[in-house]
Amino acid sequence: MRSYLLVLSLVALSSAQTFKRLGTCPTLGCVFPPDQTDFQPGQLFDIRVEVHAPVNGSEAFANGVPDENFSLQIQHGTEDPVDVTQFFNQSDPPLEKWNFTYYEDLFARDNKAPTTVNVASKAYRALSLKKPGPYKAILTYYDTVQTVANWVVRDPPKKKKVKNVILFIGDGMTQAMITAARLLAHKSINGKYQSLMQLDQMEALGHQMTHSIDSFITDSANSATALYTGKKSTVNALNVFVDSSSDSTDDPKFETIAELFRRETGGPVGIVSTAFIADATPAALCAHNRNRNDYPNVVYEYLHGASTLPNDTLPWPTHCAPDVIFGGGAEQFIKGSGSPEGLDFYEEFRKDDYSVVFDKDQLANAGNDSKVLGIFSISNMAKWLDRNVFPNNLKSLKNHPSGDGTDATNQPGLKQMTLKAIDILAARTKKTQKPGFFLMSEAASIDKMMHVLDYQRALGELLELDDTVKATLEHLEKIGERDNTLVIVTADHGHGFDVFGGSDAKYLAAQKTDRKKRDAVGVYVNSGLSGYTVDPDSLPTNNTVLVGPHGPGFPVNWEPRYGIAAGMGANPDHREAYSLNEPGPRLPATASDSDPDDFVVNPKDQPDGFVVNGTLPVDEDQGVHSLTDVSVFAWGPGHEVFRGAYSNVEIFFKIADSLGLGMEEDGEDCD
Amino acid sequence: MRSYLLVLSLVALSSAQTFKRLGTCPTLGCVFPPDQTDFQPGQLFDIRVEVHAPVNGSEAFANGVPDENFSLQIQHGTEDPVDVTQFFNQSDPPLEKWNFTYYEDLFARDNKAPTTVNVASKAYRALSLKKPGPYKAILTYYDTVQTVANWVVRDPPKKKKVKNVILFIGDGMTQAMITAARLLAHKSINGKYQSLMQLDQMEALGHQMTHSIDSFITDSANSATALYTGKKSTVNALNVFVDSSSDSTDDPKFETIAELFRRETGGPVGIVSTAFIADATPAALCAHNRNRNDYPNVVYEYLHGASTLPNDTLPWPTHCAPDVIFGGGAEQFIKGSGSPEGLDFYEEFRKDDYSVVFDKDQLANAGNDSKVLGIFSISNMAKWLDRNVFPNNLKSLKNHPSGDGTDATNQPGLKQMTLKAIDILAARTKKTQKPGFFLMSEAASIDKMMHVLDYQRALGELLELDDTVKATLEHLEKIGERDNTLVIVTADHGHGFDVFGGSDAKYLAAQKTDRKKRDAVGVYVNSGLSGYTVDPDSLPTNNTVLVGPHGPGFPVNWEPRYGIAAGMGANPDHREAYSLNEPGPRLPATASDSDPDDFVVNPKDQPDGFVVNGTLPVDEDQGVHSLTDVSVFAWGPGHEVFRGAYSNVEIFFKIADSLGLGMEEDGEDCD
Repeated sequence: MRSYLLVLSLVALSSAQTFKRLGTCPTLGCVFPPDQTDFQPGQLFDIRVEVHAPVNGSEAFANGVPDENFSLQIQHGTEDPVDVTQFFNQSDPPLEKWNFTYYEDLFARDNKAPTTVNVASKAYRALSLKKPGPYKAILTYYDTVQTVANWVVRDPPKKKKVKNVILFIGDGMTQAMITAARLLAHKSINGKYQSLMQLDQMEALGHQMTHSIDSFITDSANSATALYTGKKSTVNALNVFVDSSSDSTDDPKFETIAELFRRETGGPVGIVSTAFIADATPAALCAHNRNRNDYPNVVYEYLHGASTLPNDTLPWPTHCAPDVIFGGGAEQFIKGSGSPEGLDFYEEFRKDDYSVVFDKDQLANAGNDSKVLGIFSISNMAKWLDRNVFPNNLKSLKNHPSGDGTDATNQPGLKQMTLKAIDILAARTKKTQKPGFFLMSEAASIDKMMHVLDYQRALGELLELDDTVKATLEHLEKIGERDNTLVIVTADHGHGFDVFGGSDAKYLAAQKTDRKKRDAVGVYVNSGLSGYTVDPDSLPTNNTVLVGPHGPGFPVNWEPRYGIAAGMGANPDHREAYSLNEPGPRLPATASDSDPDDFVVNPKDQPDGFVVNGTLPVDEDQGVHSLTDVSVFAWGPGHEVFRGAYSNVEIFFKIADSLGLGMEEDGEDCD
Repeated sequence: MRSYLLVLSLVALSSAQTFKRLGTCPTLGCVFPPDQTDFQPGQLFDIRVEVHAPVNGSEAFANGVPDENFSLQIQHGTEDPVDVTQFFNQSDPPLEKWNFTYYEDLFARDNKAPTTVNVASKAYRALSLKKPGPYKAILTYYDTVQTVANWVVRDPPKKKKVKNVILFIGDGMTQAMITAARLLAHKSINGKYQSLMQLDQMEALGHQMTHSIDSFITDSANSATALYTGKKSTVNALNVFVDSSSDSTDDPKFETIAELFRRETGGPVGIVSTAFIADATPAALCAHNRNRNDYPNVVYEYLHGASTLPNDTLPWPTHCAPDVIFGGGAEQFIKGSGSPEGLDFYEEFRKDDYSVVFDKDQLANAGNDSKVLGIFSISNMAKWLDRNVFPNNLKSLKNHPSGDGTDATNQPGLKQMTLKAIDILAARTKKTQKPGFFLMSEAASIDKMMHVLDYQRALGELLELDDTVKATLEHLEKIGERDNTLVIVTADHGHGFDVFGGSDAKYLAAQKTDRKKRDAVGVYVNSGLSGYTVDPDSLPTNNTVLVGPHGPGFPVNWEPRYGIAAGMGANPDHREAYSLNEPGPRLPATASDSDPDDFVVNPKDQPDGFVVNGTLPVDEDQGVHSLTDVSVFAWGPGHEVFRGAYSNVEIFFKIADSLGLGMEEDGEDCD
């Protein structure tokens, strides 16, 4: 014991922070779910405990031999702690052993001096807690040391407040981006906007905090996890707490809103995204994996759920079972190396009674009574700007979702996919006599285009989202579901983007030196007015409200002489002319000739521009996510609870409560 | 007429956008207040009309001879238009004539080829409209051309909802900055914050749009104007619409919330800022000037109001007449070149029955019954970080407000100034038997420190604001005014700041090349946890909640090895090591040896860091403002109206309505 306390004080002097031995586990005994975890009553989850014995490094202990005689107790409120197997009425699982290595800091990495850790572990599967209140999970190891995880089971909702929930995610979408999109698409006269975004007209406004469980910057996988489950996790994780084993499918899981909704109500579930459909934000409704990049397993779980994954026979008696899946990502379905077990996964879906559609017209003609799988491209779907303004950019990509090598030139947009999903879900709700439906619809490429500093395409995706939300509210009204539906729009995280001036493209291009080119940026009063809301030949001060070729809510002109000067604090090396890249999404940095991990200015990108040195490690070729809180917008019954400022995990609890999930059934209140 | 229409179409081809002939005046006839202006009933304002005749350039017209026979009519609703002199019962003012020049675009500027414009104009002073509804101001010129300004007088409030209003302004404060400040000062365990900012605990949350009347990026002067008057204006303008004359005190004025509050209720007004007190955000409560930099006139107006400005005998029968003025900026009071007419302006204030105090102790000892002028430094007041963490930085500045050349080492902070202001205003409200008070308190150096890329000092100022808001709510409770007071916190505009990772200061300093230094930035999972909430010798994963030397709500450690990596898209050239500049506020760029208007990396700033090329014109030595919407937080009676998304001008109307300003008096509804 004394030597472990000595280790604890030595640990205080170590510097592991860029890298951690294991997130949420600062001591040598780890409990998952960790301290500060909350649950909806009845929400399924796994437990895993680990005991670590580092072999070397600043925390070296016990000669690298982890204690195999650890015990785990569960304590409900002030009752006596009870062994976990007794508490959950399960048999003792097998002892698992492995080791892993990590670098304690960047110096250790440069010196190629890793630390090795030996591990003893056990996992308990598919548990739930129904009684609300505080719990402790107490791991005892190395004889007398304890790690305690404080858990809370939230109070069950008293009543169901709404039938249907539609959750829109603007991936990477910040309020600063919404402000810029408004500038591009809505005319202001002497400072007064003549029209507003749909997002400006919310019934409830809130802010949510996006940080992950063990880092203050997040990614889409674990932030979607937080939104859909009420539990934060580690970057790249989908609906699991990250353990230290190398197996990415054995980490302790927890149940998502889609799974819980299906299990408790049987209502239909829809998943829509403009990304490849195995991407994190849609995947996190269904998949459980430490590694978001395990795309075949993600798609396998869409169809089969977690309990029947290849090589994983662990119980998980809940499945999101979506009725509607629309997006890109044909590579996970076409027979071959990208699909689960190399199968023709379109055929596997058909065997499970899904219709399969490949383009806009097939989507429109699909019946509303069946389940529908709609895959519209290989990889991410086309951007709004290219589909609507530069349709030639859709040619020669050879990305038809059938895998036949033709071009996917007839793709639907987010609006068509979302409205069709609503029609199918509403029809199937009636047909199966369920109380209502759940739909998630993602504008994925706001984020993807911000990553490559393609501000105009990113804002085009945001405007498409706004148009989709507007159309959704109108459509719900039309089909009589407006008063039955809670509509929420939020983001998963941000990018540090803002507009800081105007840019005179003509002047910038005409200058010969980088320093003179920078004079094209007009700040403060010289930022001027939006050139995007007037005809190309008009002054921005022209006070006529025009409707452009793409309708209200979209710019009249995407390439004015006077555009926005915008950017982020986090960049790879790049050249900047603030101009729209006509041939397609931007590629700001490319690998240098001498080193594939050293990214430099792409000589072909924004050739008129001036060079901006990056602020990120040189092996990052794109921008990265940022810290900022993001906005939450809500309409419909129960919208008020979305007001205020809260952690992203609260979105799950607010949705679950609105749908009445976890409500007590009469006479039943035992685990 | 035909030739003017021809000019109008030629105008469409010109490119004046970085520069404008005159903001809000796209045609050759200008009306101020311009189209889209709203008024609180009874709010005082001036009118000015101008007719332009450009001598050369793309809008050349009428041989440069402006029409002197223009006429102005006012139309209320659907009634007949009436000549302005008849409508407002004023005599015809004298005709004014002048000319001005401007560049049509950057090429014209480089070629030194300005456009000259001759002007004929008239101004009508100190008017008001009491009847609510729509109005038109119709300027007829060049015989048959008309410029029409649509005005709206808002409905009067039905009742007064609150006695006192306290408006806090976090200058330049965005939600992303609040998120970062939370990270620095509040401990999170496994992603759950153990305490929150006061700003996170608002009763109402809203967003406001900050753009100015004729540019999408704003400055503090015209954004404060919008917040305080319900009218946007042009960058650098204080409470006037900008006309084209060179005289900065003759532009058409309009009444501020402070003036209107005094005039209608007689209640006391307080102004508190950590800036020099003639700076825009405090100045805009009282001053009327096209040019915010006219500091002597600003301070003159604090004491005397606008109608008695030197050389300006125009009527303006309203004055903010503050009972409390606290801030920096002794240079406007010390007898000499910075004060109005070179007078000892402390003495002028004493003649008007103000007590004058110079430091923290004198402030504490000031009686609450008198008016008090508290000036605590030459120029801007010291930053929280320097006052509390590096107090030696206050030495050798020779900035004592008395002008005696000693150092101002005993300055109060925003909290002490605000709480004392409340005590004085509450006491004087009682003493003068008025219904309540109005107080504006500004955390000015969030913006000033963001301008110089000094992220830590900026966040320290923000944390001081949060601490002040918390203390204010508690103090109002203690003195029994909590239920009588509406407390609002917002910003005037943003900077494009966000955190995008963690930075290992030790590793960064040890690398020899810029490219290797960038490896110190950890993104996503490698961003780690906040090193600011733990002792210097502890791991950030240490899950103990500490209270540091500065109390709860402030970091425990301002210089952890693992800090935040943060920045903006808009920069001068600078070097970045993400480290705290110990000796005082940062100076990122200095003039090159060869050209005083060419700013380059300051060789003494962040010497361990890597160079980042700027994105701004090279004559900008600091960061600039950005577009983003900013947050609004409110507590108290009537807080609900601050929810939603709206233009910054709405803040004025919401405050005016809450205070019952412009309410109809029985039997009186005529102009």
